[in-house]
Amino acid sequence: MAIEGSATQPHERRIRLGMVGGGSGAFIGAVHRYAARLDDHYELVAGALSSSPEKALESARQLGLDPTRSYRNFKEMAIREARLKNGIEAVAIVTPNHLHYEAAREFLKRGIHVICDKPLTSTLADARKLKKAADESEALFVLTHNYTGYPMVRQARDMVLKGELGPIRMVQVEYPQDWLTEDIEASGNKQAAWRTDPAKSGAGGSTGDIGTHAYNLACFVSGLELVELAADLDSFVAGRRLDDNAHVMLRFKEKDGVRAKGMLWCSQIAPGHENGLRVRVYGAKGSLDWVQADPNYLWYTPFGEPKRLLTRNGVGTGAAAMRMSRIPAGHPEGYLEGFANIYAEAARAIFARRAGVPADPAVVYPTLDDGLKGMVFVEACVQSSKRNGAWVKV
Amino acid sequence: MAIEGSATQPHERRIRLGMVGGGSGAFIGAVHRYAARLDDHYELVAGALSSSPEKALESARQLGLDPTRSYRNFKEMAIREARLKNGIEAVAIVTPNHLHYEAAREFLKRGIHVICDKPLTSTLADARKLKKAADESEALFVLTHNYTGYPMVRQARDMVLKGELGPIRMVQVEYPQDWLTEDIEASGNKQAAWRTDPAKSGAGGSTGDIGTHAYNLACFVSGLELVELAADLDSFVAGRRLDDNAHVMLRFKEKDGVRAKGMLWCSQIAPGHENGLRVRVYGAKGSLDWVQADPNYLWYTPFGEPKRLLTRNGVGTGAAAMRMSRIPAGHPEGYLEGFANIYAEAARAIFARRAGVPADPAVVYPTLDDGLKGMVFVEACVQSSKRNGAWVKV
Amino acid sequence: MAIEGSATQPHERRIRLGMVGGGSGAFIGAVHRYAARLDDHYELVAGALSSSPEKALESARQLGLDPTRSYRNFKEMAIREARLKNGIEAVAIVTPNHLHYEAAREFLKRGIHVICDKPLTSTLADARKLKKAADESEALFVLTHNYTGYPMVRQARDMVLKGELGPIRMVQVEYPQDWLTEDIEASGNKQAAWRTDPAKSGAGGSTGDIGTHAYNLACFVSGLELVELAADLDSFVAGRRLDDNAHVMLRFKEKDGVRAKGMLWCSQIAPGHENGLRVRVYGAKGSLDWVQADPNYLWYTPFGEPKRLLTRNGVGTGAAAMRMSRIPAGHPEGYLEGFANIYAEAARAIFARRAGVPADPAVVYPTLDDGLKGMVFVEACVQSSKRNGAWVKV
Amino acid sequence: MAIEGSATQPHERRIRLGMVGGGSGAFIGAVHRYAARLDDHYELVAGALSSSPEKALESARQLGLDPTRSYRNFKEMAIREARLKNGIEAVAIVTPNHLHYEAAREFLKRGIHVICDKPLTSTLADARKLKKAADESEALFVLTHNYTGYPMVRQARDMVLKGELGPIRMVQVEYPQDWLTEDIEASGNKQAAWRTDPAKSGAGGSTGDIGTHAYNLACFVSGLELVELAADLDSFVAGRRLDDNAHVMLRFKEKDGVRAKGMLWCSQIAPGHENGLRVRVYGAKGSLDWVQADPNYLWYTPFGEPKRLLTRNGVGTGAAAMRMSRIPAGHPEGYLEGFANIYAEAARAIFARRAGVPADPAVVYPTLDDGLKGMVFVEACVQSSKRNGAWVKV
Repeated sequence: MAIEGSATQPHERRIRLGMVGGGSGAFIGAVHRYAARLDDHYELVAGALSSSPEKALESARQLGLDPTRSYRNFKEMAIREARLKNGIEAVAIVTPNHLHYEAAREFLKRGIHVICDKPLTSTLADARKLKKAADESEALFVLTHNYTGYPMVRQARDMVLKGELGPIRMVQVEYPQDWLTEDIEASGNKQAAWRTDPAKSGAGGSTGDIGTHAYNLACFVSGLELVELAADLDSFVAGRRLDDNAHVMLRFKEKDGVRAKGMLWCSQIAPGHENGLRVRVYGAKGSLDWVQADPNYLWYTPFGEPKRLLTRNGVGTGAAAMRMSRIPAGHPEGYLEGFANIYAEAARAIFARRAGVPADPAVVYPTLDDGLKGMVFVEACVQSSKRNGAWVKV
Repeated sequence: MAIEGSATQPHERRIRLGMVGGGSGAFIGAVHRYAARLDDHYELVAGALSSSPEKALESARQLGLDPTRSYRNFKEMAIREARLKNGIEAVAIVTPNHLHYEAAREFLKRGIHVICDKPLTSTLADARKLKKAADESEALFVLTHNYTGYPMVRQARDMVLKGELGPIRMVQVEYPQDWLTEDIEASGNKQAAWRTDPAKSGAGGSTGDIGTHAYNLACFVSGLELVELAADLDSFVAGRRLDDNAHVMLRFKEKDGVRAKGMLWCSQIAPGHENGLRVRVYGAKGSLDWVQADPNYLWYTPFGEPKRLLTRNGVGTGAAAMRMSRIPAGHPEGYLEGFANIYAEAARAIFARRAGVPADPAVVYPTLDDGLKGMVFVEACVQSSKRNGAWVKV
Repeated sequence: MAIEGSATQPHERRIRLGMVGGGSGAFIGAVHRYAARLDDHYELVAGALSSSPEKALESARQLGLDPTRSYRNFKEMAIREARLKNGIEAVAIVTPNHLHYEAAREFLKRGIHVICDKPLTSTLADARKLKKAADESEALFVLTHNYTGYPMVRQARDMVLKGELGPIRMVQVEYPQDWLTEDIEASGNKQAAWRTDPAKSGAGGSTGDIGTHAYNLACFVSGLELVELAADLDSFVAGRRLDDNAHVMLRFKEKDGVRAKGMLWCSQIAPGHENGLRVRVYGAKGSLDWVQADPNYLWYTPFGEPKRLLTRNGVGTGAAAMRMSRIPAGHPEGYLEGFANIYAEAARAIFARRAGVPADPAVVYPTLDDGLKGMVFVEACVQSSKRNGAWVKV
Repeated sequence: MAIEGSATQPHERRIRLGMVGGGSGAFIGAVHRYAARLDDHYELVAGALSSSPEKALESARQLGLDPTRSYRNFKEMAIREARLKNGIEAVAIVTPNHLHYEAAREFLKRGIHVICDKPLTSTLADARKLKKAADESEALFVLTHNYTGYPMVRQARDMVLKGELGPIRMVQVEYPQDWLTEDIEASGNKQAAWRTDPAKSGAGGSTGDIGTHAYNLACFVSGLELVELAADLDSFVAGRRLDDNAHVMLRFKEKDGVRAKGMLWCSQIAPGHENGLRVRVYGAKGSLDWVQADPNYLWYTPFGEPKRLLTRNGVGTGAAAMRMSRIPAGHPEGYLEGFANIYAEAARAIFARRAGVPADPAVVYPTLDDGLKGMVFVEACVQSSKRNGAWVKV
């Protein structure tokens, strides 16, 4: 496994990090902070933590920030931090989707690396503008499709890349949850309220919030590129304005002589699923099966042989997974560690930038292009569904 | 549980059974015999066991049949048995699909009950003719969609019927296998050869062989009726003439104010799946999850409560399942017992016929209408796929 | 797999079977009948089915027996059947334990093969007398330690025998149930009443009823012989006269240079366990893990390689298991099929006797010696526990 | 769940932490650092990280320590840090067992809180001296029996405490590993070398290294106290000087009118088990089952109802678990989070000390008394085994 000693940095080398959004009570802001802290590569030194000034200040206080570096908004923060001698080198953007573009732009244009939550933006138009902003910037853009940080996801991807499954024929990916089974946005749940509000989330409900994760993961593991999709979206809960369940058929670009097909199901109204992301990949020579809730395992069946249970850091698991792992097999790692792996990959890329060298080719993290693909995916799902499930090119 | 004593019949009351197909070496013929024998409701007394006369005779000998009741073909058997004083009362038809219609017709028109393997026929036209033949007959027609015989499938159906899941919103059904991952029909595998031959199997490959099971099970458990489907079929193995993988989106008829949706995946080229039938049903109030390979379990999640593991004959499992079970909880039953349950239901219906009384309303078995629906399903899948996944009404 | 055709016999060759005990309502009698019937090797033609004459007659009627062959007691049955031209060739003894010896003796001395439920007897003294009776008889004695009939148990045993695990170091076996968690014998449960009555069950409660199964299975799979044990027995339910929970440490005879150790837990008061028999065997080169409730699987870990899931009739499973299996992988078999395998092995031995040839060496079934060892085990458990867990030689 | 905001502290309030042992390459040192860092309650500021001065210095550099606070040995560190104005308030001791006592003593007598790895010491005599040292000190002593930090372990303990299982009758605990299956201490594996060396580990091998964890966990969850045990210890690997496999029978002190019994198995030569800690508790009214490798689940069976799957932060899980959890249900937490929970509990106790108030009664962590019990347990196992498994009081 990757021993901690080789990864950690002297404190003075830690990356100075700011955060936009993520005030107290926000789930994903806290997750980003855990992820940044775990491997000691970052130090949180500035924030525009909330649109409410009181909450921003109180959150900054709780997090031990210097009050002079708690800002009223991201623009102020970008401007001032860019001028500081020890200003932030990177910023984590953890606001609702509709603010991603504007916030990211301010930092990118000042050369500050951006680590942005997914989905990329709330509209495809914003996504394209953000793409332009990133292309024009020297700074890195990292999208936290965190599930790609799990070691056994890396193991799966590596096995596919190495041809151990043969040409890929089918991909089955699903991401059911149940927390929106009832109309909780109507009764004051804030997480639910913004995620079901087109103005804040964009055109996709479950497709945007979790479908993008599923789509990203399916491509990440299989190495395939989507060509077109056919989707059937529903809002089963009365009055809900965005999809809460989506059935999608996938057609991938030809690879190794095969045009693979897939199915994607995402739902936020599926009782019994807390966070049921699962991806299965089938090739001519074998298959893989990974379940997010039990992330330390990867089922591998070489065709014609018994099914095998690969484990994180266990025998039979290779370097691509081991470099993302901290502790021995049998000692489970979880969601925060997987998330932290994205931050660690980003840190490695940033350290390379500092040093003026290319990053190690082993360093892999989700990029703006992945985010753009996600937005195209959501758009295509919505369009296809409106056109009664017609195939839509992506 | 249903104790054996109440179910068994004095030997003289056993149903005299014939069999068409199922000579030595045939998998499904042996299964039907195990199923018929398990509860002692039937006695196999006649057969047209093979199209090869030698094999038919040898198979009859091995099975202990009176040689005078081993026939050269089903027509001879139907004619002669119908004239015998103690001729067969029922016949099991276990040939390849394309012979189902002609064989069944001969027995139906002579008032002999038919227990027929699935899918119903090889063509929709045959299926409709068979429907007519059955409508004109006094005899019963039982289709061995055997998976509906599993106790925990009955439990699931019963819970849905009683409203324990609330209105149904989604159904996810899949039936992956891996035995056709390679081109084994080319190398002499007989089971593979006829199943991949349009002349014997009909227009559907995996859709006909196992997709019909998946579709039947989804409807049986959910109580829903399909309205239309959109399908994407493939023959991934080079040279294969019938589909070996199918992705299907489903739209069901409105029920309880909800138009449920579903996805169906069937495949015979999915490494790692020996016989992976699984059905999941999601309602507004809860969900169910059943896996054929572990048939004694049923996962039940009432929304807002912990997931529960219901077990065959265990606490929390009701009468609909218990009447299909023979032994206590913790003592697993399997495929043969589930198959035998279809034979047992058929026997109960036949006994009622003998007695001139209606069958107990609890008696449920798959009928010709289910078979016809299966044929329509296959036809619709093939049509939809040819029309690039357009929605096709069923 | 073993195809049915090769196993079945012409009807006239079926073994004529009688039964002692097993009247309507008795669980294990029905199980023996299912097991005898499944493969069509036996025909039940006579019975002394109950100590109550009315119940005996009514049970015989329900089972379709000739009324003249329904007997008032086993002695009458043994005497008369022995004189009949087509009298029974074998008898199944399924009474409470305390009657096993007397019943078996009557048949053994008349050359009628005995298939007897476990444990062998209610006392060690009876067991030794029965041993003598069997030694003096030409007839076969088969004990239905049915769990040894499961295909994947055979697979496990075969792998150990072939040295795939290396020298065995530890065996962990457990058999928890929960049906006696409360004092149900006081409220009229007949199954509970006789099993907790020393006069009918013998000195062991859970040790006799299920501990013998666990012990037998541990030895069957590991190929080890017990040398001594230390036991701590309890009757946790107030007023219960026999043990309902037992903790036992095991020391085995040296084999391959290693003196293996083991632990055995049996309990009938362990909530959550319907029938939780599980055996794990650890050698220097690998391990196996088998769970009765999921009998179609066998976990195999070759040391230094990933864990593998072997399946009944699946790839990686060998001949020793396949000859005990009826249907393809992925189509689960269960308890009745495993039980039927004991009957099938007995039938093969009986057919060989008829033919005057030795049985195929592949034929394996539990014998009187296994039963005697079980009785010694119970006795040793009781003695050790009385002596505060001192080691007792067996 | 416990939101991060409420738990974190302004940076200036972070606890100044030192570390003894844990230089680069040491597994458990890195784990302690992750655990200390995750919730941002601690800042590592000093260390005596290795007995090799070069390695100590290099490790300190890698960890970003001020070189003047990297010490040659723990004594020097204790003396100097105690005099510093901003000297350490707490120290983590992560050396091999035989150094725990001497190191801890130096800090305790200077009022510096000690967070010590388990087992407490290498000898019972040392453990008793350490007990005395701690009793005479104002400082806290926290033992990292980290498995008690898992949320679902807390859930289990809470359910037992509240009587949801009724009086406890049996405890089954096991802790198999496989990393010492072969003689790796002979081929240079350092972790193996000291753990199999009596001079460094003490009298117990697997009993000391992992048996103490199992014993601690069994008592923690069940709320029971051990009275006596009978043990059978082995060193199966040729030449190994300490036990690598142990079978132990347990008798607990009477509680709620019941004298519970238990079994404990620990092994480091059990192929297929990476880190297989599992505890099961059975009461008159229900049972619990927890497996360390899948720590976000807890199986709960109320007697007479279906088995339920409780999940971390999921419905049906209560406050005792939720306060130890960081992220929503379905987002798995792992070993590091569980370990961090011990550090977080310690931090809460230290903050209370600073504030001069009693700690919240909800704060629970393993103490020196737990460590002492562990040493007594090892001693009793060794004594019992030497006396052929005689019962030994603890």
